[in-house]
Amino acid sequence: MGEKLVIGVDFGTLSARAALVRAQDGVCIAEAEHAYAHGVMDKSLPCGKPLPQDFALQHPMDYMEALEETIRAVMEKSGAAAEDVEGIGLDVTAATVLPVDAQGTPLCMKAEYVNEPHAYVKLWKHHGAQAQADRMTALAITSGEDFLPWYGSRISCELALPKLLETLEKAPQVYETMDCLMEMGDWLVRRLCGVHVQSLCAAGYKNLRRTDEGYPDDAYFAALNPAFAGVIEKKCSAPVMGVGSCAGGLTQEMAQRLGLMPGTPVATAMIDAHVCALSCGLTKPGQMLAILGTSACYMSLGEDGTLAPGICGVVKDGILPGCYGYEAGQSAVGDLFGWMTKGFVPEAYQQEADKQGVSIHQHLTNLAAQLAPGESGLLALDWLGGCRSPLMDSGVSGMILGLTLQTKPEEIYRSLIESTAYGARMIVENYRTHGIAVDEFFVTGGIGKKNPLVMQIFADVLGMDVKVIACTQGGAQGSAILAAAAAGMHEDLRTAIAAMASPVERVYTPDAAHHGTYDALYAEYCRLHAYFGRGENDVMKRLKAMKPEW
Amino acid sequence: MGEKLVIGVDFGTLSARAALVRAQDGVCIAEAEHAYAHGVMDKSLPCGKPLPQDFALQHPMDYMEALEETIRAVMEKSGAAAEDVEGIGLDVTAATVLPVDAQGTPLCMKAEYVNEPHAYVKLWKHHGAQAQADRMTALAITSGEDFLPWYGSRISCELALPKLLETLEKAPQVYETMDCLMEMGDWLVRRLCGVHVQSLCAAGYKNLRRTDEGYPDDAYFAALNPAFAGVIEKKCSAPVMGVGSCAGGLTQEMAQRLGLMPGTPVATAMIDAHVCALSCGLTKPGQMLAILGTSACYMSLGEDGTLAPGICGVVKDGILPGCYGYEAGQSAVGDLFGWMTKGFVPEAYQQEADKQGVSIHQHLTNLAAQLAPGESGLLALDWLGGCRSPLMDSGVSGMILGLTLQTKPEEIYRSLIESTAYGARMIVENYRTHGIAVDEFFVTGGIGKKNPLVMQIFADVLGMDVKVIACTQGGAQGSAILAAAAAGMHEDLRTAIAAMASPVERVYTPDAAHHGTYDALYAEYCRLHAYFGRGENDVMKRLKAMKPEW
Repeated sequence: MGEKLVIGVDFGTLSARAALVRAQDGVCIAEAEHAYAHGVMDKSLPCGKPLPQDFALQHPMDYMEALEETIRAVMEKSGAAAEDVEGIGLDVTAATVLPVDAQGTPLCMKAEYVNEPHAYVKLWKHHGAQAQADRMTALAITSGEDFLPWYGSRISCELALPKLLETLEKAPQVYETMDCLMEMGDWLVRRLCGVHVQSLCAAGYKNLRRTDEGYPDDAYFAALNPAFAGVIEKKCSAPVMGVGSCAGGLTQEMAQRLGLMPGTPVATAMIDAHVCALSCGLTKPGQMLAILGTSACYMSLGEDGTLAPGICGVVKDGILPGCYGYEAGQSAVGDLFGWMTKGFVPEAYQQEADKQGVSIHQHLTNLAAQLAPGESGLLALDWLGGCRSPLMDSGVSGMILGLTLQTKPEEIYRSLIESTAYGARMIVENYRTHGIAVDEFFVTGGIGKKNPLVMQIFADVLGMDVKVIACTQGGAQGSAILAAAAAGMHEDLRTAIAAMASPVERVYTPDAAHHGTYDALYAEYCRLHAYFGRGENDVMKRLKAMKPEW
Repeated sequence: MGEKLVIGVDFGTLSARAALVRAQDGVCIAEAEHAYAHGVMDKSLPCGKPLPQDFALQHPMDYMEALEETIRAVMEKSGAAAEDVEGIGLDVTAATVLPVDAQGTPLCMKAEYVNEPHAYVKLWKHHGAQAQADRMTALAITSGEDFLPWYGSRISCELALPKLLETLEKAPQVYETMDCLMEMGDWLVRRLCGVHVQSLCAAGYKNLRRTDEGYPDDAYFAALNPAFAGVIEKKCSAPVMGVGSCAGGLTQEMAQRLGLMPGTPVATAMIDAHVCALSCGLTKPGQMLAILGTSACYMSLGEDGTLAPGICGVVKDGILPGCYGYEAGQSAVGDLFGWMTKGFVPEAYQQEADKQGVSIHQHLTNLAAQLAPGESGLLALDWLGGCRSPLMDSGVSGMILGLTLQTKPEEIYRSLIESTAYGARMIVENYRTHGIAVDEFFVTGGIGKKNPLVMQIFADVLGMDVKVIACTQGGAQGSAILAAAAAGMHEDLRTAIAAMASPVERVYTPDAAHHGTYDALYAEYCRLHAYFGRGENDVMKRLKAMKPEW
């Protein structure tokens, strides 16, 4: 008999990745990836029916296919035996939700609903429920709902309940017919083990469920729309299971389909960003993990439920039992650099990059690395995708200041990097100002490994060590930890994390002189942040309101 | 015997242009251009001696050569006879100044000074006298000098007296030895007719000489530096001659050299930008001429000497006898569009432009023309070269706001165009607010003819007809008018202008709907102008101070 293994599967926006991991020390034995066949449906349904502008739908069978393909692939690559696999865990984007019938069958799989957009999976970035979210915010304010500050004082249209209210108001038949609106993570767990549970993590961060207080009062939902009364009981009801819990055992049918043993423990699902906090080893209050990719998520642990403005969500036990889990974010990080390289770099730079055989990102990074802090005279606001934390405001926009006729592309590139670091520092300082400690700063995600300049600038701006995690599959690795915990292979979840989390690969230490210069630049950033972001001059919103498409 | 002709020669920064013009109706018979051999010396002297960073020198023989080459060329091209030419006029950039001995010989032509930078021509954009200019401003403020508001309340380092003070303090031997510091225009006139006069226009706008009040008191100069006492009497003394006056007749020697008749009347010189006001037909208070090129000059006529902040200069009779001539400016206009096309347009745009066989400017203009006002959601401050009028502040910098991940190059291009139009409107409204009428708006210079989109946006933003002048050689044409007036070929200067000025070629009429949108956008521009430019937030200056080269 071989080693004790677990499988973690990480379901992203466009593909899923599985990791077959050794439970004893977290070492990854095999990895596999599978892209979704339909991907994101934002123009039309498979039948050809066009979709409204803000829609982003998916097909549930994409997930089932990816589940099967990736698990079969890691088993095959590794040559492991089915009986060596002692647990399965998974994480998914959220709120990514689908309406199902009493048997858990997605409504979009039924002939009468194949033409109905609201019967499909609404992906996290489906923005069709903005009007509903705005009404929910307004009502929560006027009726003094105490849950609101736990969600950044603004209901995001990406949460599950606005998406469900949208379905009620746009496709009442779908609302009536569905037995339940499920998180994709919970639905996959139900498919695996036949047990219908709610992930405390997903319900907490994405469905307004507070761990101690529960869901908002029904009066709130009834006031939004009389037909929305009873929504939690009618459409969101299932036992809530915490992080690291076991939802059930693998069914005979799924065991056969995946080539695993029936009864293999299946962990309760978790949100993809949040599970990374486990694989990156967060176990103590004061630790923060930045997941830096096209956008950024900041996960951290706190001792109590201290609230701060601009936190996207605070959930007791939401990341790790016994702690409050905090989530904050930046709408765009890598997207800023991509915007610049794609649209604003001249031919000569591209040619020079080609000549040197490096990417245009690398070429600009090399040039930007030769600049000292403050040398360009530029300062940017990183709001090209709006400001998630702390403003929670998609109405603000990007700004660059200090331009001269001598300003070069690499200077703007560096100023954009710096602006994202200022944005990160503002999130950290906002926490501290409100009594939430941030003592240690970890980084995972593509940028952390790919761009040392960005990491050094983050360290210099923050004035903190930036510790980059080795693992590149934080989601799958974290789900493997959930699997090991669910299977009882370690004493508890914390022990599992201690044994299986990925180590720090590289530490970036702040340069004292650079940090001093960045203190001065950050002070300027803060002043402009307040001026344009806190109502002193709402020019960004007025300009946005003039745009025809808004 | 042929038609009655005059010659105008326009001396620019890099070349001179002559026009042989029919005095009766201003029709141009022949044109010629000649580039200066040395051009701008900003790195080293001809002997190889390196120059400090802010230096911009020239060689006087470049001017003499260009004078001869261009005049001989137009005579040859046209086949006109020497006796047909009844007057010569010229205009030069200013303050472009050179130290000469008592015979008018430039010191840089003497063996003992060929290695001495301060013995050469200091071009208008020589910025080596910034420290002297700053001291002159400070002293004028503390001693309450009443001339200061006539020069925008700030002494520019491009004026003649700071350049002369620089010579005194950096090369006292040159100061001592020189008989006089002459404007290049006055020196060329002296070479042509042997008469040493000062142009009222150049002395007024570039040497702190007010038409009625004269030069500042000598106590002011003595307080700047004891050795500077008596500077006007010692180094700037010559009869002052007004616009359209005759300085003298062509000498035998120069007549022979140029192939013209001895005694041909030579007009007093004028500044290049100011003479355009004549060729473009400005004769009435309330008329404004915008000269739009890489930067912009705004020339206008007023009834009295009303002062407004941010006017670069106000000189009674300085443009046209009987009126006050106002000068304002924008540091960068076409330079903004060039900055964008050179540094921030991606390969794909260049390829598409090449495919269509148009310039990248034209391609971006075509794309930008498809956008409606306000559609991009962008707003820019046109300060990439600092702000000349109304702030007179080179410490401010450019800004772009409203950026999103969808922002495209043509949107930024259009926002830069719009920002220059807002800058123009601010100059116009600043005049009006202070009681100086602006009723008619004319445009000359390269952009006016080359880019109808820019002109339409100016009309839409200003809410005024924009009248583009036909002539492309406003300087040479204006100098020809000076020549005709000096030669007495018309009753007076106004009659000469009426007969010889270039007609309006095209009128751009504002679109009422666009003007309404631009009113709203201009209000936003004004608010940001005040915030960043009037001390509410001096972030631009603080950022500039952090740059190592400043």
